[in-house]
Amino acid sequence: MPSRYLNFRCSVPWLLLLLQALFLLHSFFTFPATGDIYAPSNFYPEFQDVNHMVVFGFGFFLMVLRRYGLSSTGFNFLLTVLGVQCSLLVEDLFAFLRVQQNEIGLRSLAKAVMSMTAVVISTGAVLGKANPVQLIVMTLVELIIFHVSRCINRTFLQVPEHLTLLHVHLFGAYFGLAVTSRFPEPPPGLDKNRSTPKSELFSMLGSVFVWVFWPSFNSILAGSRREAVLNTYFALAVSAVAAFMLSALTSKDGKFRMTHIHSAVLAGGVTVSYTAHTIQYPWIAMILGLLGSVITILGSHCLQRCFNPALKLQDTSGIHFTFGLPAVLGAVAAVVLCVIERGIEKQWNDLSSLGYLIFLNLGAFCQTISTALITGLITGLILNIKLLKAVHVSKYFDDQFYWEVSFKMISH
Amino acid sequence: MPSRYLNFRCSVPWLLLLLQALFLLHSFFTFPATGDIYAPSNFYPEFQDVNHMVVFGFGFFLMVLRRYGLSSTGFNFLLTVLGVQCSLLVEDLFAFLRVQQNEIGLRSLAKAVMSMTAVVISTGAVLGKANPVQLIVMTLVELIIFHVSRCINRTFLQVPEHLTLLHVHLFGAYFGLAVTSRFPEPPPGLDKNRSTPKSELFSMLGSVFVWVFWPSFNSILAGSRREAVLNTYFALAVSAVAAFMLSALTSKDGKFRMTHIHSAVLAGGVTVSYTAHTIQYPWIAMILGLLGSVITILGSHCLQRCFNPALKLQDTSGIHFTFGLPAVLGAVAAVVLCVIERGIEKQWNDLSSLGYLIFLNLGAFCQTISTALITGLITGLILNIKLLKAVHVSKYFDDQFYWEVSFKMISH
Amino acid sequence: MPSRYLNFRCSVPWLLLLLQALFLLHSFFTFPATGDIYAPSNFYPEFQDVNHMVVFGFGFFLMVLRRYGLSSTGFNFLLTVLGVQCSLLVEDLFAFLRVQQNEIGLRSLAKAVMSMTAVVISTGAVLGKANPVQLIVMTLVELIIFHVSRCINRTFLQVPEHLTLLHVHLFGAYFGLAVTSRFPEPPPGLDKNRSTPKSELFSMLGSVFVWVFWPSFNSILAGSRREAVLNTYFALAVSAVAAFMLSALTSKDGKFRMTHIHSAVLAGGVTVSYTAHTIQYPWIAMILGLLGSVITILGSHCLQRCFNPALKLQDTSGIHFTFGLPAVLGAVAAVVLCVIERGIEKQWNDLSSLGYLIFLNLGAFCQTISTALITGLITGLILNIKLLKAVHVSKYFDDQFYWEVSFKMISH
Repeated sequence: MPSRYLNFRCSVPWLLLLLQALFLLHSFFTFPATGDIYAPSNFYPEFQDVNHMVVFGFGFFLMVLRRYGLSSTGFNFLLTVLGVQCSLLVEDLFAFLRVQQNEIGLRSLAKAVMSMTAVVISTGAVLGKANPVQLIVMTLVELIIFHVSRCINRTFLQVPEHLTLLHVHLFGAYFGLAVTSRFPEPPPGLDKNRSTPKSELFSMLGSVFVWVFWPSFNSILAGSRREAVLNTYFALAVSAVAAFMLSALTSKDGKFRMTHIHSAVLAGGVTVSYTAHTIQYPWIAMILGLLGSVITILGSHCLQRCFNPALKLQDTSGIHFTFGLPAVLGAVAAVVLCVIERGIEKQWNDLSSLGYLIFLNLGAFCQTISTALITGLITGLILNIKLLKAVHVSKYFDDQFYWEVSFKMISH
Repeated sequence: MPSRYLNFRCSVPWLLLLLQALFLLHSFFTFPATGDIYAPSNFYPEFQDVNHMVVFGFGFFLMVLRRYGLSSTGFNFLLTVLGVQCSLLVEDLFAFLRVQQNEIGLRSLAKAVMSMTAVVISTGAVLGKANPVQLIVMTLVELIIFHVSRCINRTFLQVPEHLTLLHVHLFGAYFGLAVTSRFPEPPPGLDKNRSTPKSELFSMLGSVFVWVFWPSFNSILAGSRREAVLNTYFALAVSAVAAFMLSALTSKDGKFRMTHIHSAVLAGGVTVSYTAHTIQYPWIAMILGLLGSVITILGSHCLQRCFNPALKLQDTSGIHFTFGLPAVLGAVAAVVLCVIERGIEKQWNDLSSLGYLIFLNLGAFCQTISTALITGLITGLILNIKLLKAVHVSKYFDDQFYWEVSFKMISH
Repeated sequence: MPSRYLNFRCSVPWLLLLLQALFLLHSFFTFPATGDIYAPSNFYPEFQDVNHMVVFGFGFFLMVLRRYGLSSTGFNFLLTVLGVQCSLLVEDLFAFLRVQQNEIGLRSLAKAVMSMTAVVISTGAVLGKANPVQLIVMTLVELIIFHVSRCINRTFLQVPEHLTLLHVHLFGAYFGLAVTSRFPEPPPGLDKNRSTPKSELFSMLGSVFVWVFWPSFNSILAGSRREAVLNTYFALAVSAVAAFMLSALTSKDGKFRMTHIHSAVLAGGVTVSYTAHTIQYPWIAMILGLLGSVITILGSHCLQRCFNPALKLQDTSGIHFTFGLPAVLGAVAAVVLCVIERGIEKQWNDLSSLGYLIFLNLGAFCQTISTALITGLITGLILNIKLLKAVHVSKYFDDQFYWEVSFKMISH
């Protein structure tokens, strides 16, 4: 079924070629010689965990739609390998402009892979609606803006380097939401945007997969890695229990609902990400995990019934409540915990310094979320111009417009 | 299809809430302050392997039934996150009562995840027959009793700490068997307790997955980790070859049978678990692996034809021959190897000390197995009281009584 | 459907028993005592990556045929555990004959697992056409010849030990091709040698899985492990982007074609394998990755249209262009890079030494490829003798001739 909307032969390959040529040129001109780039690092196993989680785990995680499995996994993979290179280029550009220190080797690669999580999350919101050209453009724009936003946080709001990276869930979720609000709605009778038991099983396996590797994600760049691992584990465990609990409580007959489990088991990991390395007592992490799960499941009810219809928003894989709300909670919790700790330390005497601290923390949070929303809206508008050949709503959620799926294997 | 048997809304959520509140309280009151709990550890990659294996690998491994995939994976995940917390609580309680030393940080978490394997194995026996409430109660009871049994082994029978944990297969298998003997039989014509080629493929992938991570499981707490890794690898390799060999030999037409491969490839790892860190020559590990595989496949024939029908026992995923028999063999082999080594060392002069050694080893083995059987029977009786809403046999092996599986993904 | 061709009861089990007995005897007589074999090693996480990739990842990767999933995964597993033991035996035999130094412990196991990759690749060429007996014989013959070829390279052509192992893709691909050329063609109307969207999805997941672990594969034995990891990562990233680019460019309507992605994403890793540890600038690795992807996709068109029909060759999972061509490119690139580096170093003065260098490098390459082709042809002839009960073409590509797939799970 060829259609003038969907021939990407003149766009996708050349776009990819252009980008790859750019990355190659960048690599040729700016990468320092050996010995510098190949700096020592002792976290190869953790890097592999994060890499495995982003490339393979999220590819699984996004397989929620019944006719969109190949695209979910395939595009996630393409965007990751593109985005990592783009992210390295942007980092080097910023280092060249002297707005940040240059980092090299595996550490810089790990940061690039982590940055990509923002794009992966945003992809979840437009899953099945954006064509490859739109996704590639979105990846580039989002990564550049995320780096700018991180740079503002670091320079003007004194956020430590590795914490700027953990705004990745917040940024990704709200950017994705803003982008998806500019896409036309699928017609009500469309049958393809459903999940089947099989696609749900796959996406739950993906959730569990990502769950296992989340402690590595939260701890890889942290100074106190052990604390980060243990606190993240406890938060994740509690949020998984709470996900089952709330799912049975809010559904008819006390059955478990797949989407709840799918999204809420990870809530604890997202909520605790800002504070995992500083929390002193596991029970704090556990309570954060519990609250994260609660806000995710309540959010999934409220958002899907009131917020999304009111704003004519479709959030295909529910990233708003899976990543957005827990990240907001986590950011607020980080401020509260930081204030309490400092307050106790100084016996609540130095209120002006406390106020400044709150200002800085809330500033970083508000700056990230507003940048994400505003630039997301603009990106959404750009993505729907004619040049990028937006997919018609009747062709949403379908692998067959992007993949040649049936052919003889043995060409002979 | 609502039914008065199957509404878990009034039980599951509150039970989970109660437990989670208990774990939170425990964490609040007994966890030591930072610096203690976050003790250093250098086995994070191995811990991730074990965690990945228990949460993801066994979730896959249990997907044998054609209509029970979601529950197999989902409940395995729920029970693991619950059980790990419960296990930490019990360990702390025992440390508080001065019957064992307190261990902290990642090491204590690794022990909790390993203890959970007992529950995962027991779950395999009642797969598809127990409802979530029953599974949760079973998890709690089993973990507490397993800790008590370990404590007896450690205190009265001088078993080293990390070896007490490796009784996990023995305990899990016989506890599960005893529990399942108290469940009513499914009617003969029931069609749902079959596997399909697809579910078999998944469960074999799960076996291979668990196979890969088994050396980490056996070595994580051992003193001589390298020996444990290599011996386990050799035992696993031989038992995998033997599994294919015996499967072709015992089936019609020399075809391979999935269940054989599914269960026997792991037999070597289970058999060698008690002795992996002490075996001095790889050929001993290889012979143990071979014997493990032989006993598993012979066992699967004998048990399924004679033993199970005689005792009216249904062992859904065959854990008796997958984990039980190889563990018995491993325990006997451990005694024999220990006696030979000591005997050669002392030139068979000090027979009374040898006898005492045999007594201690066999004592630990008999204590574990009899505790598992007796408490398993009692637990099975408790699980079938009316309060826990046992599932009717016609509703066995079916996802749809526990999961809301078809709904619109995009709410709006 | 019993048939006199397909009863393996009298062959497979006894062959496996014989081999396993041989490996046990070898282990009994030649393994050194403890303390030697269990030598220290600090690359357990990398070893686990490689093990996971070969056992689980390639099992997935080969699941391309719609009715051959169980066999693809199951036989890959069987051959791996057999081959690793066979490889250890051959290594020890060579050490006994004084043609190589004896290596022990995890390092020797890692080398055995890596050697197995040759067999796994060759298996891809005869996928669905060879029966288990043929596959086992092929594994043994191929491993022995691969070790001999490595030994020639090491002894006469001065190739460093760990580089001899990286000829594994080249050897495996051309050996497999030569073997498959001796198998009869499937009839044109055969329907079973197709992939379905589901089998393609699985095999793409397998590709992504293998992709994630490839840096560990290339770096595990290298001296400068960090360089190897980073260069491999960059090469893989570029070749993945190029795979999508070229796939969209060469297909109708600019759609992506699964087989392209399936094979070309790994091309970069194969191409860069000889040079990953010596490349000084990432852009060189990136260009190699790009060229690898280009040669794979062009190759898949040319080979499938001209070369394969002309030679009456069927390469079931396209290993010629997936592993063969990129490995040839990589070997040529290694010579060029080596010559340029040495030339610049010595200012192009010492041309005779440069010529000798080229001779050695090209010699190793030609020796490997010609040994693979010649012995592969002979092996192919041996495999098709009557004794080994070659499968009739009408029974190609079908699980049901090797597996008992439908039976009651719960025996009783």
